[in-house]
Amino acid sequence: MIPMEGKPGEAAGPQYLALRDQIAFNIEIGKLPAGSRLPSERQFQTSAGFARGTIRQALAQLEAEGLIYRRDRSGWYVSPPAITYDPTRWAGFMAYVTEQGRTPATITLAKSSINANAALADIFRVAPGSPLHVIERMRTIDGRPVLVERITVDPALAPGLLDHDLDGSLTQILKHKYGVVVARNRVDMRPCALAKEAAETLGTKPGAPSLTVVRTSFDEKGRVVEYDQEYWRHDAIRIHVDLSVRGEPDA
Amino acid sequence: MIPMEGKPGEAAGPQYLALRDQIAFNIEIGKLPAGSRLPSERQFQTSAGFARGTIRQALAQLEAEGLIYRRDRSGWYVSPPAITYDPTRWAGFMAYVTEQGRTPATITLAKSSINANAALADIFRVAPGSPLHVIERMRTIDGRPVLVERITVDPALAPGLLDHDLDGSLTQILKHKYGVVVARNRVDMRPCALAKEAAETLGTKPGAPSLTVVRTSFDEKGRVVEYDQEYWRHDAIRIHVDLSVRGEPDA
Repeated sequence: MIPMEGKPGEAAGPQYLALRDQIAFNIEIGKLPAGSRLPSERQFQTSAGFARGTIRQALAQLEAEGLIYRRDRSGWYVSPPAITYDPTRWAGFMAYVTEQGRTPATITLAKSSINANAALADIFRVAPGSPLHVIERMRTIDGRPVLVERITVDPALAPGLLDHDLDGSLTQILKHKYGVVVARNRVDMRPCALAKEAAETLGTKPGAPSLTVVRTSFDEKGRVVEYDQEYWRHDAIRIHVDLSVRGEPDA
Repeated sequence: MIPMEGKPGEAAGPQYLALRDQIAFNIEIGKLPAGSRLPSERQFQTSAGFARGTIRQALAQLEAEGLIYRRDRSGWYVSPPAITYDPTRWAGFMAYVTEQGRTPATITLAKSSINANAALADIFRVAPGSPLHVIERMRTIDGRPVLVERITVDPALAPGLLDHDLDGSLTQILKHKYGVVVARNRVDMRPCALAKEAAETLGTKPGAPSLTVVRTSFDEKGRVVEYDQEYWRHDAIRIHVDLSVRGEPDA
């Protein structure tokens, strides 16, 4: 069998996969609960007799899969369960995280006014150079940073938006303070690699795998209300879609 | 503004983002079409007067976003457009790639019989150790490898499956040769990092960001028909979901 997920410099071999399976099983049955610290590499060597390289490969494999993560200098920890995001459901971050029994929070990192570049001008159908509001936020689940996001809003729809407290639901502010209501959502997702500053904010390494979720919200007139670019920690999100047969599959 | 996507070792700075924007714009307007080779680092230095570090950062940024990719020793090339996958639509790879004017192909890499481990036994509701068919395939778009996949099938539903030519639609073989029809699909997606062998098959580096798409297909009796784990090149796939208001958003 070909191992499909992994880290740079990794060699194939059944031994590290056996150790990986053993640790993954202990996580699954709750013997190693979320947030708990894994035994040290030395302990794995002593107790199970694995070679150092094998142990490192197994740990790197589990990290690539998002099952464990490294904390600066203090070793490896079991990742909290990923949050499940269903793009076909109409629920915001605060709602779907709470529904899953977890505690969401939002922290505003920066607010600024920028001049639209060609790409943003195209999205908002404004002239290049037009002013746009930009809000940068971090969102946490149970206190752990899981995403950084950049939200762009046309000030023509929401003048003075940046003067509000933006640590909650932006959609609610737009609705209640400006009467701007979202009628349609377009969600685009793609895997990417994290830049240095976003990685630091999320407590991971530059180049770490990430998921970009771009949500474009439109009002009933088709105007763009919010253009939101989210960058997720790779171990914090899982997309789930369930569907019954509607046509003829041919996969 | 915080750059959110990037590569290891990258520093923040407006200059590399300006060069990134310039190259991205030339890709967007078709001045640098898909598959074309970018000017060399030296050419960028000479013609535009950028420092080597700035040029490398801009190229790494574009690679992290999936806009360009490196070919062994021959430099940087513009990525072909990503294929759009809508998990809410009931269409297989061969269908949705063709619909987008591209040419799909499937190559079988390995067929084997394995004994179910605890995780697979749970998915297929069989006893651990029960035999399962495993098929490993690579799929290409316009001749470029875009995903490797591992498909698991219960031989009780499809005895002798591995004797068939599996370079086409597996769902069609299951339907026409075995009368097994898919009634429901569950799709789970999560960002991950590629292992060495999968990365080599896809012509990229171990640890490169990837998207895992896991599709579990059930028949009308709720039995698992196919358990398919796909690992995509990060620049080859984009998920798209469009939805009109159905409830109360609070993002």
